[in-house]
Amino acid sequence: MANDIAEKEERLKRQLDFCLEIDKEKTIVRETYLADESRKETDAEHAWHMAVMAMVLSEYANKKVDTGRVIQMLLIHDLVEIYAGDTFAYDAAGAATQKTRETSGADRLFSKLPEDQGKTMRALWEEFEAWETPEAKFARSLDRFQPMMLNAATDGRAWNEHGVKVSQVMKRNARTHEGSEALWAWQLEHFIKPNAAKGRLKED
Amino acid sequence: MANDIAEKEERLKRQLDFCLEIDKEKTIVRETYLADESRKETDAEHAWHMAVMAMVLSEYANKKVDTGRVIQMLLIHDLVEIYAGDTFAYDAAGAATQKTRETSGADRLFSKLPEDQGKTMRALWEEFEAWETPEAKFARSLDRFQPMMLNAATDGRAWNEHGVKVSQVMKRNARTHEGSEALWAWQLEHFIKPNAAKGRLKED
Repeated sequence: MANDIAEKEERLKRQLDFCLEIDKEKTIVRETYLADESRKETDAEHAWHMAVMAMVLSEYANKKVDTGRVIQMLLIHDLVEIYAGDTFAYDAAGAATQKTRETSGADRLFSKLPEDQGKTMRALWEEFEAWETPEAKFARSLDRFQPMMLNAATDGRAWNEHGVKVSQVMKRNARTHEGSEALWAWQLEHFIKPNAAKGRLKED
Repeated sequence: MANDIAEKEERLKRQLDFCLEIDKEKTIVRETYLADESRKETDAEHAWHMAVMAMVLSEYANKKVDTGRVIQMLLIHDLVEIYAGDTFAYDAAGAATQKTRETSGADRLFSKLPEDQGKTMRALWEEFEAWETPEAKFARSLDRFQPMMLNAATDGRAWNEHGVKVSQVMKRNARTHEGSEALWAWQLEHFIKPNAAKGRLKED
């Protein structure tokens, strides 16, 4: 009985330590500007934005998806960056070490939770990373759509600052259509082509 | 056929206008400091934090809850503040006009969505506001727990700055136990009592 109470208290304590630890996601700043250009968004804001977008846009997934699962995936997909840091989309040097950094970040972070929950959350993160299920494919598509939407809304500011080329965007988005043909068509027509035409995305 | 395509395009356009509009939630700053005290958190970060906490802490809801529904409620519960602004927990003048401001904010915001989605999302927000279902009660409890956790982690900084009294906290949390007795017991024991003892929360 006493042991049981101590175990329950220990479980809650671990869960709350995790809940406090992830506050750090709010301090990771991405390269994407807010629509009003006042500053760059944080990882936590990015995850929140996409989760709400999943509530609104799930009907455009190529295959019927479990929206709740997409939302949970998006909410936690960047948590490993608490230890691994954010890797900008067009940072080749960062990309080379990204996988290793993120895997060790996952080991460290998810082991803070009680074992059952740590396993569940890690599996969800690995599902996102593996890019295979309809939910993961749609979540991945939103993960490309949302920053591109903000880039377009700010006249391609982040693209401009980093001298990003059309070919880089196309390469990075080679699989975006797998999650949603409709959203990818919109990106091409309304985000990429107009910004390429105005020179905010550089031609090769 | 042509009409059908135009209607579909119009629907997606409205959805995306909404998705861009809610970017403004990232510019609404709350009174709660991040755990590292570097700055105050934004509404979007607050919503994200609680949504992940719902994934971890749902087992402590007094009644079994649909976690997915709790998450969606938390993700959108502050959206009306885009037009209504944030009202600090202990701002009596603000509280007097809060309901009116938020209702007109809801009218304006949710009508941006296609009608079916606007109705669904508004109903979810109203469920949260009504504080009656097990999901709403648990979401409300998290909405009290999360800022109190950060307040405790920052030695009661926001409480200190606003001269908040124990009696105010207790009054504000009169119904918090309805969502989760276990989390409320933790708040009392680990957040409220120690901070009152140290004078960071003022005795009356």
